[in-house]
Amino acid sequence: MTSNPDTRNSTTTAADMTAEHLLVRAARCQPTPRRPVWMMRQAGRYLPEYRAVRARTDFLTLCKTPELAAEVTIQPVDLVGVDAAIIFSDILVIPEALGMELVVEEGKGGPRFPKPIRTEEQIASLNLDGVEERLRYVYDAEALTRKNLDGRAPLIGFAGAPWTLATYMVEGGGSRNFAHVKRLLYACPDKLHRLLEIITEAVIRYLRLQVRQGGVDIVQVFDTWAGILAKKDFLAFSLPYMERIVREIREEGVPVILFPKGAASSLREIAATGADAVSLDWTMDLGEARALLPANVALQGNLDPVLLYADTDTIARATRDMLQSYGAAAGHIVNLGHGILPDIPVDHARAFVRAAKEFSPVQSGPASQNEQT
Amino acid sequence: MTSNPDTRNSTTTAADMTAEHLLVRAARCQPTPRRPVWMMRQAGRYLPEYRAVRARTDFLTLCKTPELAAEVTIQPVDLVGVDAAIIFSDILVIPEALGMELVVEEGKGGPRFPKPIRTEEQIASLNLDGVEERLRYVYDAEALTRKNLDGRAPLIGFAGAPWTLATYMVEGGGSRNFAHVKRLLYACPDKLHRLLEIITEAVIRYLRLQVRQGGVDIVQVFDTWAGILAKKDFLAFSLPYMERIVREIREEGVPVILFPKGAASSLREIAATGADAVSLDWTMDLGEARALLPANVALQGNLDPVLLYADTDTIARATRDMLQSYGAAAGHIVNLGHGILPDIPVDHARAFVRAAKEFSPVQSGPASQNEQT
Repeated sequence: MTSNPDTRNSTTTAADMTAEHLLVRAARCQPTPRRPVWMMRQAGRYLPEYRAVRARTDFLTLCKTPELAAEVTIQPVDLVGVDAAIIFSDILVIPEALGMELVVEEGKGGPRFPKPIRTEEQIASLNLDGVEERLRYVYDAEALTRKNLDGRAPLIGFAGAPWTLATYMVEGGGSRNFAHVKRLLYACPDKLHRLLEIITEAVIRYLRLQVRQGGVDIVQVFDTWAGILAKKDFLAFSLPYMERIVREIREEGVPVILFPKGAASSLREIAATGADAVSLDWTMDLGEARALLPANVALQGNLDPVLLYADTDTIARATRDMLQSYGAAAGHIVNLGHGILPDIPVDHARAFVRAAKEFSPVQSGPASQNEQT
Repeated sequence: MTSNPDTRNSTTTAADMTAEHLLVRAARCQPTPRRPVWMMRQAGRYLPEYRAVRARTDFLTLCKTPELAAEVTIQPVDLVGVDAAIIFSDILVIPEALGMELVVEEGKGGPRFPKPIRTEEQIASLNLDGVEERLRYVYDAEALTRKNLDGRAPLIGFAGAPWTLATYMVEGGGSRNFAHVKRLLYACPDKLHRLLEIITEAVIRYLRLQVRQGGVDIVQVFDTWAGILAKKDFLAFSLPYMERIVREIREEGVPVILFPKGAASSLREIAATGADAVSLDWTMDLGEARALLPANVALQGNLDPVLLYADTDTIARATRDMLQSYGAAAGHIVNLGHGILPDIPVDHARAFVRAAKEFSPVQSGPASQNEQT
């Protein structure tokens, strides 16, 4: 499975095997007794226990302190009952490790880069040399998380997709129209490709060490801004880089999930990357996506995160409907269609997780006539 | 064609017939010597002549003063060379006419409703009685525009889709997660349907008078927030209301264009409403949409509005590529995938319009084997 089996198996218990099997097996479209469930951004502000840790430290310090990162990573497993932990971190640690100053100020919007990339010189000055070593705190946090999880759940590692990271690096933060990065794309495509090459190399090295040293069981790549591109630009500037990451990381023996938010019109091409699973945002119909894509590609998702504001009966009903729309085939990882919102009541998150576990029909083989690889 | 042929034909000239034919014929998938081109939000801030008018008056006064509205509506026809004028107005005039206070403050984000709809009582208090009369200034502006256009171009009327209007009315303005309107949707669907019924009735009366009294040649319905819904919710809370509008307004003898932004996964269902044309945002591939949809449904779009920041050669090339991806069939109205941005150089807008006119291949019949209705 991995090049570092000692780390991965040292704490294995029967419970671990079960939980790990649920997620990893579902990602590989293998039959499971029920579907695994977790939530994007599940280690976060909606949990009072998370807010208590955050009250003592700032966001980046939390990311960079393995003991604290491990603590909040494990919280939702124990408090909400999810079937997997995802390492507490941020996709923007890679640009920071490449040499960009990253600023996270409380209550001032998301993280931002005060000196966004606008020139060729800035692209050339990104420091790929040893970038993976500057992210060692992530692997340390993962190894500690795995130890402390003690087999209760598998651990998910992650990174941002190169296109999404480039978007943040060029825009400097959130954006309304993404004018800067699109100007680069339309006017200087070669420069953007050079930037994407550098980021892709960093992501591969980073995810490789998350597997080898952090001991993660599975990896997810977040392409949060896939949906702002024309389809042909997505196929040219995002997909090939994700494909390269998928190829390299699957060689490490773990499944890879791609989450291309908003890219409904490129689903088939995304599934053709070789990714084990595709995570759908809430706008796409799960049953239609299942029918559209090959049976050996698992699907993750896709309840509207905003639905968790509704009462728990509504949440349970909507979750059941979503599971039914997928059908009885193997290969469904239950999740939201995007991250859980910070002011969702914890009981509502629990209602979602409970419903996902209760209503899972017994699963048979892969989704349709196609044979899995 | 219309129930008020006098208004519509009083100023008809040879030029008018040509321009009108381009747009109206293309919307009906009938052959045209070249494809018509216009731009969403073409009467707007990127034009110095528009800014000059706005310097003398506020946004709502501009909407409500027929002489001024007609002036800015016609500007892009003369200054940029588009093949159609779209009446200068705002989709939020309907909620205002239903009794909601609408505030537009300079430089403070978009228009907003200080008292958003949150209760059943507020829904019940919306004043449908005579709503179409309170919007008379729009029909007056349209009739004057048509007179002043003097046959240079056809005139497009428009309204917001009921779902999009409901979203603004419940949220009170722009929104990050649309939590209020979605809470209503998930927890009290009946209340939301009641609100949508009221809005739909207002939209139908409004568009009907835009045709009968304003003399518009074609109508577009903007579902700006189609893309925030799960597919099944879009099919339940947006599409049936647009379908009703399409049916009622087509009976007035004008073609109807639907613009469901972000609804890539519901294209087939949108085309099945009976709309003459579907306007695509820039994320969807025009050629794929053409292959997916029946040949008697025209397509509008869909260059990324951000591409107009690029140099004029790049704009021309991208426009040509877009036209080629549609193919040589009839039924293509060239447009952007969303509104033109306020800081686009006018020359870049002209380059887009020029390229659309130059590169239009000669068009034959409808798009494929299907016969048009």
